[in-house]
Amino acid sequence: MNNLDFMKLALEQAEKAARLGEIPVGAVIVNPVGEVIASAHNLVETQRDATAHAECLALKEAIGKVNQKFLDGCDLWATLEPCAMCSGAISQTRIRRLYYAAEDKKSGAVEYGSRVFSHATCHHKPEIYGGIMASESALLLKNFFAKRR
Amino acid sequence: MNNLDFMKLALEQAEKAARLGEIPVGAVIVNPVGEVIASAHNLVETQRDATAHAECLALKEAIGKVNQKFLDGCDLWATLEPCAMCSGAISQTRIRRLYYAAEDKKSGAVEYGSRVFSHATCHHKPEIYGGIMASESALLLKNFFAKRR
Repeated sequence: MNNLDFMKLALEQAEKAARLGEIPVGAVIVNPVGEVIASAHNLVETQRDATAHAECLALKEAIGKVNQKFLDGCDLWATLEPCAMCSGAISQTRIRRLYYAAEDKKSGAVEYGSRVFSHATCHHKPEIYGGIMASESALLLKNFFAKRR
Repeated sequence: MNNLDFMKLALEQAEKAARLGEIPVGAVIVNPVGEVIASAHNLVETQRDATAHAECLALKEAIGKVNQKFLDGCDLWATLEPCAMCSGAISQTRIRRLYYAAEDKKSGAVEYGSRVFSHATCHHKPEIYGGIMASESALLLKNFFAKRR
């Protein structure tokens, strides 16, 4: 699998979320040998839990699978720029590379807002690659919100 | 119970963490009628999970208890200034008031670093009261790290 394939899997997760009436955001985590060890999508409404974001759910799943407190060498693929909570969790778990699709001017915390990875108090900063398949992710979000109005 | 009593409960949680060899940080959540609905302490080492911070564990417990996605009207008491991940989770869950004891110049995200609540991308900012019983919390932390060296 190449990089685009991992983002495609994250987008499939986002589509699953949309079918449940959840804002379509998905995430996958890939270990150092290229295996997908976690995949999740937004479940805020289903789980009645405002913290049940795709990235946090994927991180918990991956942590459980490797049975280690850090995810050294693992990469996270997300369909939307992570918020402050998820960016903080990505830093805490020492994700190696963060790939994300659409930017999030309203709630993102990588390029926008609190820019969690851009301060001396952030003790682990992943390599960051934004904008991968951004238009596909943005279209999913746009269609989702268009239907709700 | 008054405000200091809730912080004392959070400090008791921090002491429990220390006895387990965990960095002593504790948190409690109080509902709008003044009942403690969640109390937790740092479990990063025990759970082998770098995201198992006291505040996040308490938030998950409280969310499960009220069975609602937000914690409207609830207050969180923490013995240390929350990090970016926990501050983000506090915002997502719409905690009404955040009380914390010691400041955390190294990893905090309220007054220091990414200042999660101080950006337009933060859609819910609690009332924030820092420095309550700060010296008691700082002493616990100091003693813990002194023993480890």
